[in-house]
Amino acid sequence: MNMWTNDWPRLELISAEGVEAIDATALRILEEVGQRIIHEPTLEMLRGAGLKIQGDTVHFDRGFVREALRQAPASFELQARNPEMSFVIGGNHMVNSPTGGAPFVSDLDGGRRPGNVEDYIKLVKAAHMSPQIHCIDSGIVETMDLPQPTRHLDMDYLAMRYSDKPLMTGGASYETSRNGVKMAAILFGGAEAIEQTPGLIGIVNPVSPLVWEENMLGSMHALASANQPVIFTPFLMAGTSAPVTMAGGVAQWCAENLACIAMIQTVRPGCPVVFGGYLTATDMALGQPTQGSPEWAMGILAGAQMARHYGLPFRGAGGWSSAKTVDAQSGYETVMGIWPALLSGTNFMLHAAGALESTMIISAEKMVMDFEILRMFEWMLDPGLPVNDDTLAFDAIAKTGPGGLFLASPHTAANFRSALYRSELASLEDVNLWTEQGSKDTLVRANERYKAILEAYEDPGLDDAIDAELQEFMAKRKSEIGTST
Amino acid sequence: MNMWTNDWPRLELISAEGVEAIDATALRILEEVGQRIIHEPTLEMLRGAGLKIQGDTVHFDRGFVREALRQAPASFELQARNPEMSFVIGGNHMVNSPTGGAPFVSDLDGGRRPGNVEDYIKLVKAAHMSPQIHCIDSGIVETMDLPQPTRHLDMDYLAMRYSDKPLMTGGASYETSRNGVKMAAILFGGAEAIEQTPGLIGIVNPVSPLVWEENMLGSMHALASANQPVIFTPFLMAGTSAPVTMAGGVAQWCAENLACIAMIQTVRPGCPVVFGGYLTATDMALGQPTQGSPEWAMGILAGAQMARHYGLPFRGAGGWSSAKTVDAQSGYETVMGIWPALLSGTNFMLHAAGALESTMIISAEKMVMDFEILRMFEWMLDPGLPVNDDTLAFDAIAKTGPGGLFLASPHTAANFRSALYRSELASLEDVNLWTEQGSKDTLVRANERYKAILEAYEDPGLDDAIDAELQEFMAKRKSEIGTST
Repeated sequence: MNMWTNDWPRLELISAEGVEAIDATALRILEEVGQRIIHEPTLEMLRGAGLKIQGDTVHFDRGFVREALRQAPASFELQARNPEMSFVIGGNHMVNSPTGGAPFVSDLDGGRRPGNVEDYIKLVKAAHMSPQIHCIDSGIVETMDLPQPTRHLDMDYLAMRYSDKPLMTGGASYETSRNGVKMAAILFGGAEAIEQTPGLIGIVNPVSPLVWEENMLGSMHALASANQPVIFTPFLMAGTSAPVTMAGGVAQWCAENLACIAMIQTVRPGCPVVFGGYLTATDMALGQPTQGSPEWAMGILAGAQMARHYGLPFRGAGGWSSAKTVDAQSGYETVMGIWPALLSGTNFMLHAAGALESTMIISAEKMVMDFEILRMFEWMLDPGLPVNDDTLAFDAIAKTGPGGLFLASPHTAANFRSALYRSELASLEDVNLWTEQGSKDTLVRANERYKAILEAYEDPGLDDAIDAELQEFMAKRKSEIGTST
Repeated sequence: MNMWTNDWPRLELISAEGVEAIDATALRILEEVGQRIIHEPTLEMLRGAGLKIQGDTVHFDRGFVREALRQAPASFELQARNPEMSFVIGGNHMVNSPTGGAPFVSDLDGGRRPGNVEDYIKLVKAAHMSPQIHCIDSGIVETMDLPQPTRHLDMDYLAMRYSDKPLMTGGASYETSRNGVKMAAILFGGAEAIEQTPGLIGIVNPVSPLVWEENMLGSMHALASANQPVIFTPFLMAGTSAPVTMAGGVAQWCAENLACIAMIQTVRPGCPVVFGGYLTATDMALGQPTQGSPEWAMGILAGAQMARHYGLPFRGAGGWSSAKTVDAQSGYETVMGIWPALLSGTNFMLHAAGALESTMIISAEKMVMDFEILRMFEWMLDPGLPVNDDTLAFDAIAKTGPGGLFLASPHTAANFRSALYRSELASLEDVNLWTEQGSKDTLVRANERYKAILEAYEDPGLDDAIDAELQEFMAKRKSEIGTST
């Protein structure tokens, strides 16, 4: 199993009464306001379940929602084709996935450009090589150089081909998610193998506030009917897609998540789900969301606290940034968001590496910087700050004595390799040496490190027969979709 | 009163048993290893107090230390000449002070250069204007263009002249700290006024491990005999000035702090003290300390936890960075350190703004970026995420309904100004607008903001009679020291 264990106490900014009040408001939204379900098969299913429906507005009553919550597991495993890379989502575990969904990519050498297959493969390779990245997002960048209707097949395939870590599919419609499920079935030896232990995880988003449209619900059906886990991701911007006051946003967030959980448990009782989403502020002058902002940080803490209330795993966002380049803003916004991820007990951190421009681009250098930041948090979780006779080092202190230098102590020689964190990116040298070596800022250093990571890439390989089967499936689907390349 | 209130739960990485083990080790260090006291008057005082002394190594027994701990107050007030700016150090309060002690200054316009009076005044003005900076450090930058033996007088004076916030003196010897105390007495209307409510705070550092030299102990006597609070600041680098394993560093840190507290309470029972210092890693290849690293963050958490154990206020470090410029590293390292400051319940955050190159320089742009980062944390403390009927906004959600836009809601219009944080620095615009406006990164944006802050500076003035008295005192001392300028 490959995941973090986060035994830190949770930082909860909302009181127990506050949680109850938010939950009560969420239930009122579910029952009294309702949610638009723009998908006839889902409406039919919910009608069959006895819900009150007016037009396409469905009122989810609390009994129905509570029953769904009872059916959803508190944690579940996601399998990797390399069993050592499998992980658990939930409990005190945490896993990280790179940013997903960006249409653009950038690096220092080639600048900002549309996503493409060449960069896609490099990015997957780099994510594969980072021990702090546990999951591969098949939407790590859009391959804009491939035909739109079928590129999801190539993207899922390339993620499967170049990494043996668990997979998040970028699928966002019935067709695309169903294809992802079928390819995962091929990868893991059949539909039953992934029904028992899920082989990919997908995302379903409402259009906030309170609307679920056809493609997303189709994707939900494709995933849930195969028992593949689904993360819900409302994007709540206080003042535009959510109330301007955060507490109302949290309530709406809960209402949206609970509705989708109820739908999924109706499709497939027991299907694993992840309470997810973002809640942040809108910059009212620009109409843009803020990231690494106070609302962003508090949104992560609040969402995770509510997920805990409902007994569900939580998916938060990691190092998003509004910055346009790997500048100081990109650094401070990222860490503004990653501390709360740890403090909240986030179980699945999406967008944990690479995001700039509010995920409009994935930056190779930003990704490498984020790897380093994640490594630092990993170190704080393990080894942390162990206290025992050896680490208390009384004898070393006594022998070194007042005015002595611990550099010369046998205790230092015996322990420094394991006791001290060593950055792979930061400039720690003094300014003279730094200047001598070319005054390299983080962007330049990260660019060098990105190339070194790609140099060091170790191909996990892919079984020939499985590869052939995947290729065959893709060829067939492409020909059916009618844009064979 | 001008300070933050931090009611967040404390993040404690060390178990209760771990705290006891560290305390027990600290007491063994105090008693068995002892500490070198290179200052005859202090040795004489400690001899008089009945301590065991061999050469200049003093063994502090636990009874003596515990009695000192009983005498030291858990919190105290530091007064400002503007009473609204006074604050309390201790309890659940937090105050921020800019970085101090840097010999160099830099900004985008003038580059890196030795500290000087002109920049000194600008930096004090900017710190004065930031609502997130509560204390002015008279060592905000060294005025290298003034004669060394007397520049401490000018620096204390300029800090008093251009800000009416409480003052930290840069004094680091008996002579310099005594002058600071005398000037504070003039500022506040006499020695008695500052004996009752302290009028400046100073710092005393050991040479770790376990050595206290003459100048620092002289400074300690000058401050403590006038009942002015003292912060202790060991700089513990795991592997050089402290054991390579952190727990031993924490124990040594406690031993050094407890020794100095015992000395201070012997000079002046009840004198306010602050448990302080840094504990971080040494980069073993470069011999440099790491900042914004895992050890840095855990050091803050551990130090504050021990200070709480001893019932003392805690002084931690804020946004130190090893970066050489306002690049991404400077951003991520800063926030890596400021989250733990809040999570640890740090009471006095020194180096909260401006530090680069491990505080070898104060950067104007870094300072402005840090102001912004501090503003974000302030927002999370207050207003935070209040939950009540108005913020839950059920009516707004019901009226906006599925698919609606909250931008049009009267609830948004009524609340957006107070509900949403607004950055004064970050780039939130989309990439096209950003490019149109000159592709300004954080360094450029912060430079513009620094100039705007200085433009907006409001002089708090200084009473003419007090000003004249301060000038007279300085002239007299300069002539006595023999380097009148």
